[in-house]
Amino acid sequence: MRRMVLSLLVDNTAGVLSRISGLFSRRGYNIDSVSVAETENPLFSRMTVAVTGEELTLEQIEKQLAKLEDVREITELTDGNSVCRELALIVVEAGATRRQEVIAVADIFRANIVDVAPETMMIELTGNQGKVDAFIRLLDGFTIQKLVRTGVTGLIRGQ
Amino acid sequence: MRRMVLSLLVDNTAGVLSRISGLFSRRGYNIDSVSVAETENPLFSRMTVAVTGEELTLEQIEKQLAKLEDVREITELTDGNSVCRELALIVVEAGATRRQEVIAVADIFRANIVDVAPETMMIELTGNQGKVDAFIRLLDGFTIQKLVRTGVTGLIRGQ
Repeated sequence: MRRMVLSLLVDNTAGVLSRISGLFSRRGYNIDSVSVAETENPLFSRMTVAVTGEELTLEQIEKQLAKLEDVREITELTDGNSVCRELALIVVEAGATRRQEVIAVADIFRANIVDVAPETMMIELTGNQGKVDAFIRLLDGFTIQKLVRTGVTGLIRGQ
Repeated sequence: MRRMVLSLLVDNTAGVLSRISGLFSRRGYNIDSVSVAETENPLFSRMTVAVTGEELTLEQIEKQLAKLEDVREITELTDGNSVCRELALIVVEAGATRRQEVIAVADIFRANIVDVAPETMMIELTGNQGKVDAFIRLLDGFTIQKLVRTGVTGLIRGQ
């Protein structure tokens, strides 16, 4: 089993996401994460899809995606050829007595505290997937009330 | 026309994204952005969807989504009740003579330079949508070679 991250340049039209996600679901493949938004050119969106599977399955997926008319460009993002990042927001339970602890953990990861309420704090973290995973593990002593991740996004490095 | 951002807690199973995006595409609604990834509980994913439409249409969408079995929780994220963020990676053309200019622009927005090649630089920026839009406008004097945005993600503020 291998994890593959694909960057797709697609037409920015209704139905593209549906066609692409349909291609995965018809084969019963669960997508690890997806993010998609407009590019600098409103005609196109860029979609980043992470999926885990056997090598043969991944090859099939890539071939099937390439056949879709809406898909203009497919690039596999690897550790070597790209910069990949993810954004996470995490709400942890932390009253006045535990705030300093949360701030200390956040500081280690250069994460930002973006909201403080009497019983909770919200942390914003940007990094590669390993960093986000490590940060969530480090929060083990806290109760995570809510967590959202954008999933991985990335671009090929300059030549 | 109004822009609505929905945070959906959904079952982490194959086909959820397909069912949700299908609901939009069957009605011809184009989604502005989507991001989805696992939460701290691998049984669930959290999906953030931004869509623009007439008030009545948006109400319909929310009702239809609530009917889907995979959708466990729907929350509308507004400026008032939530913290919303987006991550963008941007490759601009910048040889040795223009690097300082790019760094200066990045500094203003607390953006990070994450890759430098002989003819290009890659910038990583996190912020609300307005900040990302403003940054892209500020890059007007540069040629953007590639750009990827995760789309908006967010969580409700603590009470």
